[in-house]
Amino acid sequence: MKKNKYNEPLQLHRKLRGKLLVKSKIRIKTRSILSKVYTPGVAQAVKRIAQNSTDLFDLTIKSNTVAVISDGSAVLGLGNVGAEAALPVMEGKCAIFREFAGINAFPICLNTQNSNEIVDTIKNISPVFGAINLEDISAPRCFEIEEKLKILNIPVMHDDQHATAIVVLAGLINSAKIVNKDLKSCKIVINGVGAAGCAIAKLLNFYGIYNLILVDSRGIINKKRNDLLPYKKDLLNISNPNNIDGDLLKAAKSSDILIGVSQKDLFTSNIIKSMALNSIVFALANPDPEVSRKNAQKWGISIYANGRSDCRNQINNALVFPGFFKGLLKSKSRKVTNMMKVAAAQTLASLIPHPTANRFIPSIFDKRVVPVLEKSVIQSSI
Amino acid sequence: MKKNKYNEPLQLHRKLRGKLLVKSKIRIKTRSILSKVYTPGVAQAVKRIAQNSTDLFDLTIKSNTVAVISDGSAVLGLGNVGAEAALPVMEGKCAIFREFAGINAFPICLNTQNSNEIVDTIKNISPVFGAINLEDISAPRCFEIEEKLKILNIPVMHDDQHATAIVVLAGLINSAKIVNKDLKSCKIVINGVGAAGCAIAKLLNFYGIYNLILVDSRGIINKKRNDLLPYKKDLLNISNPNNIDGDLLKAAKSSDILIGVSQKDLFTSNIIKSMALNSIVFALANPDPEVSRKNAQKWGISIYANGRSDCRNQINNALVFPGFFKGLLKSKSRKVTNMMKVAAAQTLASLIPHPTANRFIPSIFDKRVVPVLEKSVIQSSI
Repeated sequence: MKKNKYNEPLQLHRKLRGKLLVKSKIRIKTRSILSKVYTPGVAQAVKRIAQNSTDLFDLTIKSNTVAVISDGSAVLGLGNVGAEAALPVMEGKCAIFREFAGINAFPICLNTQNSNEIVDTIKNISPVFGAINLEDISAPRCFEIEEKLKILNIPVMHDDQHATAIVVLAGLINSAKIVNKDLKSCKIVINGVGAAGCAIAKLLNFYGIYNLILVDSRGIINKKRNDLLPYKKDLLNISNPNNIDGDLLKAAKSSDILIGVSQKDLFTSNIIKSMALNSIVFALANPDPEVSRKNAQKWGISIYANGRSDCRNQINNALVFPGFFKGLLKSKSRKVTNMMKVAAAQTLASLIPHPTANRFIPSIFDKRVVPVLEKSVIQSSI
Repeated sequence: MKKNKYNEPLQLHRKLRGKLLVKSKIRIKTRSILSKVYTPGVAQAVKRIAQNSTDLFDLTIKSNTVAVISDGSAVLGLGNVGAEAALPVMEGKCAIFREFAGINAFPICLNTQNSNEIVDTIKNISPVFGAINLEDISAPRCFEIEEKLKILNIPVMHDDQHATAIVVLAGLINSAKIVNKDLKSCKIVINGVGAAGCAIAKLLNFYGIYNLILVDSRGIINKKRNDLLPYKKDLLNISNPNNIDGDLLKAAKSSDILIGVSQKDLFTSNIIKSMALNSIVFALANPDPEVSRKNAQKWGISIYANGRSDCRNQINNALVFPGFFKGLLKSKSRKVTNMMKVAAAQTLASLIPHPTANRFIPSIFDKRVVPVLEKSVIQSSI
């Protein structure tokens, strides 16, 4: 029985042979239609765009089309599986774009993990797309790639960083209300300093949270460490104000909030029990969290969330990206800003005006999510 | 009235805002479905492909997905309009792939016209696709790009070359029957030595036609000319056996077949009248042919065809590419061979067992075309 359930997704994939369909919006049954959508009639659209490239948004798929791009270097919790094995995830993401936000999204899996080649390739294929969703690219290359792509005239967003950070901030805004703490005065520990951990730290800092401790597999990020990559060194500017050193247990002591974007089972009873009263834990390692809900509650946590689709209060970027990208496309934004991200988090949080430990984050199936995120991005893009 | 008709395709493009839809094959309405098509269930498909990359064909869109790729350097008869303005044509082509052959095709317009960058970009994005359709790329870069992409493990075909050559050969096989000439003994002149002209010459040569004269804007391709680019020099090996020089009029004298892939109105009455008895003219410049049907017939031609969608016996690559690519995908061919092309031409011709001047090429709306081409490619790929 268990085995069968385990095989279900694979069976579904085998049955579908790909989760996406590219269709024509118009049936081509007559020469008259054919000669409008193809030669010779199509030449009129070509000439119009050649004269004025803004017509591209009115005459082609560009205004509603996103590229979902991965090099397969950091896929789910599976690591560097490569471009081909990444495709089912990218297709799934594209299916979600269509189903939840009515957006055309097409998967691009890159046969290179060289940052410069990735940047060049994305620049070269950009004309067809209204926005670029980078996905499952490992740190620190994801930072470099995203930074270099800012020269494009369409927005580029690495979802694992920013959409995750937005949902985390939304969850924290409501969680802090429940336990009656001032979020900006909380001591927050983030365990895991990859793409998601970095982005969460930066967004929390921008939001005004300064008592932030970051912990990687070698301990607390602090000024004494000489093993830090540049991107981790940069994080010293926004974290560890008292420059403490030590391990996760030391970091977690008296903390109000502990966020895991690391590996399963890392949050032991000692760590959880050392936290402050009325503490909050987001254990976001997927599919197996840093600590189970059951243990976290047994050890004294007030608020708990993880990233699993089968749990309540799911903290997952899928809650954000459909509506957020819809807003980017509609507003024709050229950049993704921190203002947009904070506005999106606040908007998401506001959908649950009376949060409780059982419900403080809307479900991905909540029909309000996409339209309010879209509106919030449009408003904050002006 | 005329003006209105002229605007119709543009109005249609404006109404559609893009001719393609990317859809999910499965509705995502429950957490159970979501967790199969996306995390965590999708991980099973990822792991399977990571173990064995041939599973990519069973578990993803790859086996039924073609990239339609252009750099916008030679779009329709409009020339180098660039990547953005090329998009409506590529979308139209993708719509035809879906409507006529049930294939997923996605447009990729490249923001570079550097051959090496194009090759690298296509290599990098190739994992998602089962075949690559190069489109509207100018000569001689199109030859170089196609040649370099032979290292990919999926087939790459520049449609403007090979699909055009296939339809031309099919049309000639049946035309020769009508006028009761042995095609392999005919004197054939090709005016225009770009992508299509070259490919036609090479395929006719492979088919066994050796009395071939090629003419570019400076006259007959011959050994005395010192202005020939390397790709034109190479054509001396398969053309102009008597090394004659001169202009199109001299070339056309006593020829049985004249094929234009050049510019409108180039075939004057002198040229047409100088041809042999029972001659055949394919005037394929688009949208305005080298000579009109009316004039060609007035000046003594027996068989006439052009490339327009609104004329009978249309010689257009759209007749070939849907079925041909379907065969490439189904057979999982890694290469496009001359054998496949000749087989496709013969198959197309055989759909009209009793050809007449009025009907010697099947219509693109003939339901038999795609399945017989598919079958012919599969059979000739073995």
